[in-house]
Amino acid sequence: MNSIGNMLRLTTFGESHGAAIGGVLDGMPAGMRVDMDNVRLWMSRRRPGSTSLGTARREADEPQFISGLLDGVTTGAPIALVIPNGDARPADYDSMRDMYRPNHADYTYQMRYGMRDTRGGGRSSARWTAAVTAAGALAAQWLAGRHGIRIAAYTSRIGGVALAGGYLTVAEAACRYDNDVRCPDAASVAAMEAEILRARAEGDSVGGTVSCVIEGLPAGIGSPMFGKLSARLSAAMFSINAVKAFEIGDGVSLAEVRGSQVADEWIEAPDERRGIRTAANHSGGIQGGITNGEPVTFRVTFKPTPTISRSLRTVDSDGRGCELSARGRHDPCVVPRAVPVVEAMAALAVADALIEAHGYRQ
Amino acid sequence: MNSIGNMLRLTTFGESHGAAIGGVLDGMPAGMRVDMDNVRLWMSRRRPGSTSLGTARREADEPQFISGLLDGVTTGAPIALVIPNGDARPADYDSMRDMYRPNHADYTYQMRYGMRDTRGGGRSSARWTAAVTAAGALAAQWLAGRHGIRIAAYTSRIGGVALAGGYLTVAEAACRYDNDVRCPDAASVAAMEAEILRARAEGDSVGGTVSCVIEGLPAGIGSPMFGKLSARLSAAMFSINAVKAFEIGDGVSLAEVRGSQVADEWIEAPDERRGIRTAANHSGGIQGGITNGEPVTFRVTFKPTPTISRSLRTVDSDGRGCELSARGRHDPCVVPRAVPVVEAMAALAVADALIEAHGYRQ
Amino acid sequence: MNSIGNMLRLTTFGESHGAAIGGVLDGMPAGMRVDMDNVRLWMSRRRPGSTSLGTARREADEPQFISGLLDGVTTGAPIALVIPNGDARPADYDSMRDMYRPNHADYTYQMRYGMRDTRGGGRSSARWTAAVTAAGALAAQWLAGRHGIRIAAYTSRIGGVALAGGYLTVAEAACRYDNDVRCPDAASVAAMEAEILRARAEGDSVGGTVSCVIEGLPAGIGSPMFGKLSARLSAAMFSINAVKAFEIGDGVSLAEVRGSQVADEWIEAPDERRGIRTAANHSGGIQGGITNGEPVTFRVTFKPTPTISRSLRTVDSDGRGCELSARGRHDPCVVPRAVPVVEAMAALAVADALIEAHGYRQ
Amino acid sequence: MNSIGNMLRLTTFGESHGAAIGGVLDGMPAGMRVDMDNVRLWMSRRRPGSTSLGTARREADEPQFISGLLDGVTTGAPIALVIPNGDARPADYDSMRDMYRPNHADYTYQMRYGMRDTRGGGRSSARWTAAVTAAGALAAQWLAGRHGIRIAAYTSRIGGVALAGGYLTVAEAACRYDNDVRCPDAASVAAMEAEILRARAEGDSVGGTVSCVIEGLPAGIGSPMFGKLSARLSAAMFSINAVKAFEIGDGVSLAEVRGSQVADEWIEAPDERRGIRTAANHSGGIQGGITNGEPVTFRVTFKPTPTISRSLRTVDSDGRGCELSARGRHDPCVVPRAVPVVEAMAALAVADALIEAHGYRQ
Repeated sequence: MNSIGNMLRLTTFGESHGAAIGGVLDGMPAGMRVDMDNVRLWMSRRRPGSTSLGTARREADEPQFISGLLDGVTTGAPIALVIPNGDARPADYDSMRDMYRPNHADYTYQMRYGMRDTRGGGRSSARWTAAVTAAGALAAQWLAGRHGIRIAAYTSRIGGVALAGGYLTVAEAACRYDNDVRCPDAASVAAMEAEILRARAEGDSVGGTVSCVIEGLPAGIGSPMFGKLSARLSAAMFSINAVKAFEIGDGVSLAEVRGSQVADEWIEAPDERRGIRTAANHSGGIQGGITNGEPVTFRVTFKPTPTISRSLRTVDSDGRGCELSARGRHDPCVVPRAVPVVEAMAALAVADALIEAHGYRQ
Repeated sequence: MNSIGNMLRLTTFGESHGAAIGGVLDGMPAGMRVDMDNVRLWMSRRRPGSTSLGTARREADEPQFISGLLDGVTTGAPIALVIPNGDARPADYDSMRDMYRPNHADYTYQMRYGMRDTRGGGRSSARWTAAVTAAGALAAQWLAGRHGIRIAAYTSRIGGVALAGGYLTVAEAACRYDNDVRCPDAASVAAMEAEILRARAEGDSVGGTVSCVIEGLPAGIGSPMFGKLSARLSAAMFSINAVKAFEIGDGVSLAEVRGSQVADEWIEAPDERRGIRTAANHSGGIQGGITNGEPVTFRVTFKPTPTISRSLRTVDSDGRGCELSARGRHDPCVVPRAVPVVEAMAALAVADALIEAHGYRQ
Repeated sequence: MNSIGNMLRLTTFGESHGAAIGGVLDGMPAGMRVDMDNVRLWMSRRRPGSTSLGTARREADEPQFISGLLDGVTTGAPIALVIPNGDARPADYDSMRDMYRPNHADYTYQMRYGMRDTRGGGRSSARWTAAVTAAGALAAQWLAGRHGIRIAAYTSRIGGVALAGGYLTVAEAACRYDNDVRCPDAASVAAMEAEILRARAEGDSVGGTVSCVIEGLPAGIGSPMFGKLSARLSAAMFSINAVKAFEIGDGVSLAEVRGSQVADEWIEAPDERRGIRTAANHSGGIQGGITNGEPVTFRVTFKPTPTISRSLRTVDSDGRGCELSARGRHDPCVVPRAVPVVEAMAALAVADALIEAHGYRQ
Repeated sequence: MNSIGNMLRLTTFGESHGAAIGGVLDGMPAGMRVDMDNVRLWMSRRRPGSTSLGTARREADEPQFISGLLDGVTTGAPIALVIPNGDARPADYDSMRDMYRPNHADYTYQMRYGMRDTRGGGRSSARWTAAVTAAGALAAQWLAGRHGIRIAAYTSRIGGVALAGGYLTVAEAACRYDNDVRCPDAASVAAMEAEILRARAEGDSVGGTVSCVIEGLPAGIGSPMFGKLSARLSAAMFSINAVKAFEIGDGVSLAEVRGSQVADEWIEAPDERRGIRTAANHSGGIQGGITNGEPVTFRVTFKPTPTISRSLRTVDSDGRGCELSARGRHDPCVVPRAVPVVEAMAALAVADALIEAHGYRQ
């Protein structure tokens, strides 16, 4: 339930306003020197308060690695990482303790467990993605160093403002963290920021889309039927809070077109190592669940943050109707902070598939 | 790789033009009398040649249950089902033996396994979904009989023709199998059929969307984080051939809206068993990965069939460019025949989650 | 429940007196030509009626491979094998239909499933090990051909007659199938046979031990903690009917000795590839759950067949005491026929661990 | 690799001389108030230095629960527990850094990972069983409180000194922790202690056996074939350091007897809830892998501690022969401290099987 992956497996734990959140990353190949500055960079990209657009909660988010490393090098033993919760204010949530917040997991956890941790969403808060990000940073370091695989996610839509055209390359997306919306298209940044700030000013929230591209994956990775790389990526993305849709390649737009319009024809490519490539990449680098050597591309839709300042109807734990006026610190839009989380989950899923392909002794 | 599910697990096998396809369904609760006429009904809905719109291949598709039943009643032992391949014509594919068909899994299987079964796609053909359908029929019978859960999928888009409005109810979709496109909206059927026939006439293919609604699921089913019911449904759907997108509830449209527009407010509902319900269902009955008692709704996008009659550029196994003019029998649109497959995979995923919740002794 | 293995996974199905038993072997590397004569040889070693000492039931036990092979070569797709039940006589068991046979799984299945298949034990019969044997034959062929790994199990005890000394080598055990007790020690064969025949003559049954040695496994295979090769072998062996104990290396005798007596000291071995070896092998080639490059050795204890001709006290399904006089055909000792099954399960477990180590693309 | 269990899953981490060892227990039912004094009692029974017979290493072994509890009650979220390493002296092992200790996992880890953590065995040290013990204490509390299931393990052999007769009842074993060898038979305690002290005095070590009995398990728990409770218990026990054999019920002695001698005949038992019981329990409460309602009994053999003070031959990392004279603190016999670890692993395996049977909502 709280573990994902087969040969590389992440197990997570922790609540939003408990002592700490963290995870255990099992199966990381031995002998990799961890670049701790790079891990901190990943953490800073997801950290609350890291942008002018997000929650006011402040967290150091410095992961403590308490096992699996010897002198900074992975030993093959499970890597436990703990991120203490600093700026927890469980009292902020007292007034909501007895209400079910709409579109939150309050009621569903109550029905699942017969009780719930009311401190800021407890386990259901997105705070746990800090552990995902730290673990994903390690997986991404291994993918880059061992296999030359690079991953870039970026904001491609905020509410009514969307990037035109298809997926960017990793190079084109390189500048995504230079601005607070995590969008590599300079022309769209200001409009996206305005969309978020307008939602906040109106006591509202707004949704958006994160696109992701993975370059350098060799052909032949993934397995048929129930082990498809597309299915694994989809399941990985749906574990992230607020995700409501997952598309590979051209995604939902493929429902509207003809086969002849989206054929990824194979052509000779004498200059490339494999000697062939596809003329287009509508299928997002995956056919039959297995990579074809082209970039793997996918999109993830995030719903608007359910917590808004406007008053909402709801019921209390006795089923009586009431009004909810939210307190607590929350983002008007989760998309910018979700960008590194998408990258982290993608890195974990891809690294798992590569270890299945080449073994743990690679 | 070829197994899905935890407490209810389907393992599939078989190739399109081999001796048979089939599956092993492990974990079905004991004591259920299988309604074989109902199984045949499911099979007929997916069978090639069952509609005027699909492939000309003819198959009896009568599953043989060779274990797990005693006098027609499940014993709790694994249920093996075998569906012989009748109308196999592997010779149809001889001319394509040495080419990689664009958007097919030919090249990816070659790179995954170092070889491939060229007989009509071999393992990668959608023919294996016949086994999924038979297994799903059993799961659906158990869900209906034991838990009162009903599932209906239906065609909601073919190319440029789409149903307007939100998800239908199971009752509204009841008539979906009365026409060849599997669409419950009488006003759209003719236009959808025309879209498919036009694509076929032009030697082309067309994509579409299947919507699905699950009614009767109690609140509290599913698990947090990596065991979310949404993630399981998504992974299940991505196992189906040609699927390129999965959306829960309002899906991709949630990227464009404000939180206040899509709040599923809780309201008192004195007439209902639970005493409460949501005023809307934008989130598709799942919050935090766990059911909230409202209908679970999702959409699946299918790409256009990659095999088209028009000539396409490709390369042969030596990497030399060539022209491909497809032979073999194939559907201009996979959507109508995918409708029962979506229902089957949904039934398997939901039954698995219910057995986790209530145990195998329920 | 009916599946074992991670990267190489066997799923089994079928009842003793149903239509067939069989299995699906998923994850077999592609490109291996299956030696069908060798598969038949494996089957003949386990087949009922193959020795003068076993059950009178006659079965052809010719496995039909209905998927996963193309012109006799593995394709990487799941290999489904079906073994029809020929000489089924469910009526033999009518008189026992309503009684719980002592030391059988009759009562436990009834309590597990709320019902049971009374035809000769149904799913709980050892007949399913025919499918294990066929699948294990394939795994053993791959281990031998790809990795030079050889496995030999042999009868080391029947009741009061036991082989003295430690484990034999594979070469020493080569002649084990030349006699009906599957014992490579010519001096013990007659006494073991006599032990079995005496038990049968007295309407009784007798237990015994199978020893197994695996040569050629490189060092470094297996994983720590919950992935130990010893734990996997143990779980694999306990899946075989009638197994009641599993010992690695010196096993239970290690409880009685001093550490200095059983130290497997490392010594230089200039003539060997690795350059080192252990002076003894009390630990059975596994330390910390991981192979050390020495032969892996283990022993499996089988209880006496519970079905005996002598009258036994039992209760019927109403809990009323009654007398049971067994009918049906059964072995007075399962050990000889279990020898190839132990080899098969060992081959499956070891192949799975090797694919984890080297990947599916090896 | 470092996770065990399906519906109740323990993931462990940590090295002997690193910062901490710990684990994540996922799937614990919500709503159980944890008895922390009882957890401390469990820890004290396993703690180094807790008896006069063991290692001189001193550890507080106070587990810190950093998630999954709210006001001391389980919430259903994963329970992370961390046990800091206090009395770590990695320098003790400097002289052995470059040698492979015989019968240790030094060489096998080196071959598995291409490197190893030389600080006191690193991950391969038995210190990790402190995390198992803490997690097992929680599982045992749940089994006792929710299902009335009680587990007792006890020392039944140290070297040449063994308890006569069959398994004890939980009541008979209640006094096992009153002495340092963890043996409930007052007449044997002194001889067992003498056996250990004599081994230590001679710079040697000695092996032994732990027996375990589980009372209160209802009939029908466990699954056929690859989900047998016996197989799960066996795999769980083999995860414990130094385990070399596992026996259910009468175990290895069943190889030597006749079926008529060990028939567990069913008899009427009007005074008991089920109305029936077996007249004997040679099969250890499990038939066909499923419980029959009688006590589950098993035995685990531990080899002598491989670290002894006597000089041993070995090789260094260059493969050159050398002499090893061990330093570091170590037990002359692991058996007394293994008793609570056997109980903990048994509790985890049984609780997992019960949650599968009754669901997570029980």
